[in-house]
Amino acid sequence: MDLTSALDFDKASGLVMAIAVDDATGEILMAAWMNQEAFEKTLELGQVVYYSRSRKKLWHKGEESGNTQTVKSIYTDCDGDVVVLRVEQLGGAACHLGKRSCFSRRAENGRWVDVGQQVFDPAEVYKK
Amino acid sequence: MDLTSALDFDKASGLVMAIAVDDATGEILMAAWMNQEAFEKTLELGQVVYYSRSRKKLWHKGEESGNTQTVKSIYTDCDGDVVVLRVEQLGGAACHLGKRSCFSRRAENGRWVDVGQQVFDPAEVYKK
Repeated sequence: MDLTSALDFDKASGLVMAIAVDDATGEILMAAWMNQEAFEKTLELGQVVYYSRSRKKLWHKGEESGNTQTVKSIYTDCDGDVVVLRVEQLGGAACHLGKRSCFSRRAENGRWVDVGQQVFDPAEVYKK
Repeated sequence: MDLTSALDFDKASGLVMAIAVDDATGEILMAAWMNQEAFEKTLELGQVVYYSRSRKKLWHKGEESGNTQTVKSIYTDCDGDVVVLRVEQLGGAACHLGKRSCFSRRAENGRWVDVGQQVFDPAEVYKK
């Protein structure tokens, strides 16, 4: 079965969850969504393209910041509704807040504590 | 802000995505969903409780197979709609197919190839 047809886009209204992992360290960088077009564009470009639910369009990660994600390998789970992309994260930061990973808050004693590693200043990168 | 109220359950109809990671190896074991009750039950028990969308009820992972997930640490992302749980996976397998990780299919030359590590025989574990 080809790659796209083995995925189950029906469970989440045409989307699959996409988890980006740093291929070098195994760290989870971010989790977002892909529709079929985003998944196929990702295969075509070799760079990760998500689907933005808020903007309702394809989102070529890093198109603005330059922090694109080069695909190293792709996995899916037993029911095909989530994909894991092992990537090379250009610029060293996946999060729009300039942190290495979006998962920068850790639960400690009943509160979320910021443990993120700041890589860039978002005010500098996203000049408008 | 307390742990639950910082999470955004509204984006996905009362649910957040929950990604379980092997605390010892960093490997992603599975991805499923939690509603607020499942998240709070997870905090209370120190074992992972998901919400099953198909069965529409809480799903204490491993309640049938014995392969529970002991919580080591919990992270959330910048917008609080995904949690990452670093866990100790009892029994060594997270997937109901008896594989170590649910993410056992890798894209190779346009096809999904099974690269999963078989830990147990599901026919033996889920006797009915």
